[in-house]
Amino acid sequence: MFPAPASDSYGKPQVMKARVTVTLKTGILDPQGKAIEGALRSLGVEGVTSVRQGKVFDIEIDGGDPKKAEALLKEAADKLLANTVIENYRVEVVG
Amino acid sequence: MFPAPASDSYGKPQVMKARVTVTLKTGILDPQGKAIEGALRSLGVEGVTSVRQGKVFDIEIDGGDPKKAEALLKEAADKLLANTVIENYRVEVVG
Repeated sequence: MFPAPASDSYGKPQVMKARVTVTLKTGILDPQGKAIEGALRSLGVEGVTSVRQGKVFDIEIDGGDPKKAEALLKEAADKLLANTVIENYRVEVVG
Repeated sequence: MFPAPASDSYGKPQVMKARVTVTLKTGILDPQGKAIEGALRSLGVEGVTSVRQGKVFDIEIDGGDPKKAEALLKEAADKLLANTVIENYRVEVVG
């Protein structure tokens, strides 16, 4: 058996794509979502009972290791992208 | 064959959950994403080569018809949630 190569790229650096989704925790008020709810109603869009707004970050990362990428993204989310007191986040490495 | 019931709920109204994801179109500058990139670097998170920020809307809708829900959400996205000149959106009915 051969060891896995450190990189299987041909001179060009590998890039992974990922998405971090940040949403408000249950129970945290979302006045912006409430405003959107009201605006939809006044625009004639009927049937929407609740709106909660969150954020997504589409991120590109150097390197080809999904495990490392996920660890990096969790660090980024904890340090900067999410306020973990009031927000949850989810990390997906797309490929 | 019996016609499908208008609602199969037992007195309580049916609610569907959905998510609308709004992202900037390719080529549209994202200064906020650039700022996050820089902030991550100065926080010591290495390896992030690109960040683009978008929005998510977690929406609850009356009724049990996924087709109708999707049409409603597209209307909401076109009218309010996304600026279709510079943004793309994706609608997912979760269930």
